[in-house]
Amino acid sequence: MPKNFADRLTEAVLAKRSQVCVGLDPRLDRMPPSLLARYTSEQGEENGRREIGACLEEFGTAIIEAVAPEVVAVKLQLACFEQYGAPGIRAFQRLCRRAAAAGLLVIADAKRGDIGISAQAYSAAFIGRPEGLDGKIDGYGADAMTVNPLFGSDGIEPFLDDCRSYGSGIFILVRTSNPGAAELQDLQVDGYGSVSQRIGGLVAGWGEGLHGDGGYSSVGAVIGATSAGAISGFRELLPRVIFLMPGYGAQGAGVADVASAFDSRGLGALITASRSIIYAGNGDDYAAEAAMAAASMREELWQAGGGGG
Amino acid sequence: MPKNFADRLTEAVLAKRSQVCVGLDPRLDRMPPSLLARYTSEQGEENGRREIGACLEEFGTAIIEAVAPEVVAVKLQLACFEQYGAPGIRAFQRLCRRAAAAGLLVIADAKRGDIGISAQAYSAAFIGRPEGLDGKIDGYGADAMTVNPLFGSDGIEPFLDDCRSYGSGIFILVRTSNPGAAELQDLQVDGYGSVSQRIGGLVAGWGEGLHGDGGYSSVGAVIGATSAGAISGFRELLPRVIFLMPGYGAQGAGVADVASAFDSRGLGALITASRSIIYAGNGDDYAAEAAMAAASMREELWQAGGGGG
Repeated sequence: MPKNFADRLTEAVLAKRSQVCVGLDPRLDRMPPSLLARYTSEQGEENGRREIGACLEEFGTAIIEAVAPEVVAVKLQLACFEQYGAPGIRAFQRLCRRAAAAGLLVIADAKRGDIGISAQAYSAAFIGRPEGLDGKIDGYGADAMTVNPLFGSDGIEPFLDDCRSYGSGIFILVRTSNPGAAELQDLQVDGYGSVSQRIGGLVAGWGEGLHGDGGYSSVGAVIGATSAGAISGFRELLPRVIFLMPGYGAQGAGVADVASAFDSRGLGALITASRSIIYAGNGDDYAAEAAMAAASMREELWQAGGGGG
Repeated sequence: MPKNFADRLTEAVLAKRSQVCVGLDPRLDRMPPSLLARYTSEQGEENGRREIGACLEEFGTAIIEAVAPEVVAVKLQLACFEQYGAPGIRAFQRLCRRAAAAGLLVIADAKRGDIGISAQAYSAAFIGRPEGLDGKIDGYGADAMTVNPLFGSDGIEPFLDDCRSYGSGIFILVRTSNPGAAELQDLQVDGYGSVSQRIGGLVAGWGEGLHGDGGYSSVGAVIGATSAGAISGFRELLPRVIFLMPGYGAQGAGVADVASAFDSRGLGALITASRSIIYAGNGDDYAAEAAMAAASMREELWQAGGGGG
């Protein structure tokens, strides 16, 4: 039986003394100029999509290999790759493999949500195995993915099946880090508190049977680090759920905001940062700069987040 | 200035006397056996992904060309393609072009939802133009796409920008057709009715400024045809919003369920069916069978749906 995702994550956190997940959301206008120039000059057919794919792959590979000692996971933003068609998707797929080879857990930040065969196909693609011409074939092979809960339980079940079969994990959007989140997620619903709290309750139920030996479930929750005051409330509601927390660094949240998400051993939350790490430098030493930014975030969090306290 | 999506859809409905959208959600285990056998025997490297892409493209092309006279739009389910990596995405891209060449409006059933640069990238990919190495390049070139509203307004704005710039449209998930939808979407929220009604209210606002000459907005709503009793309520709430309605046919909804979505000219709703059309036959004449199923659905709806009444 494949090892439970939550346990794999816990082991990595303790081994590396790191709760950092680097977000790889590459955009061309933020690439180091010398890197970009090389691909621009080679630009061929198909609007340069092939060269763009290669550029994203080179950038991502350099970042992954540089930050690997400091972080436990990489979260790849699908949108940044999908917009460049087949070459973009190929770059995404190769970066998933590179990250796994560098010993990182791979989170596909896909935020997919659908029902029936479509939910099955998304799950198979990222954290399971798709149906091929004669039997199952490899998908992108991520360890976990982000999922949108709007469809309710029958939209989530196909993902849970793959978590069980393949030792994968999912992180369900519970409270996102953007200002507009309030419009729907903070609405008060009869009997449940807010919509986000209701989603939280569902997440706890969906995670039953998927807890690892360490007590945490492979069904996690995305909770914006910018939700500040609300984080300790979510922690009380969801004691055995791992939080994936975007919004740290460039989006404004800091150590004090996320501290209440960790347990006494520094477990239970993965803090993601993208821009503040991957664009820490934009000269030829961009990867080394990224590693330094990741190291400093690792240290800052580990001191504050239970582990080093 | 590019022509408004809602107006382009209205023109197509009136010209073809059809409110049918065919859903292209191909899965290998439902392909006509003789078609599948050809690709299975050719299966090469990469787990046969290349042949799978080619198989999906051949099937989709045949369906698109056969049903084109009977339907106004094709809705391509991304999940079915994305699970096969770069070859799957290439098939998706080519089918978008084939459908446009056959005179159909193309709806990318992506159900994407994100914020900031990620929402921008998803929008650019499907209904706008991504940033290339030196200027904008072509994306998938769909006319419209489906979008998940969970993030609120700042998750929707990038899509609205592209609707304005490129004459594209979006269909926002308001009330989906699956049983689990009730768990979140039917919750009653303070001051707004249900969560779905609150989303509906937001959809009406997001569509301001995107109305065509015909009065409908390019910001539409996905409302399951299986929502039966609730459809007339949504129509009252959203008089100028086009409904994209899945759930007809194989999922159980019929003409009586969707009739209240149409205005007196038969406009205002696009009814989608997938399995009942694309798998109408599975012999060598599968495309002809699909065309017959589409024709019969077109006629049935047009009689009931205002247009032929």
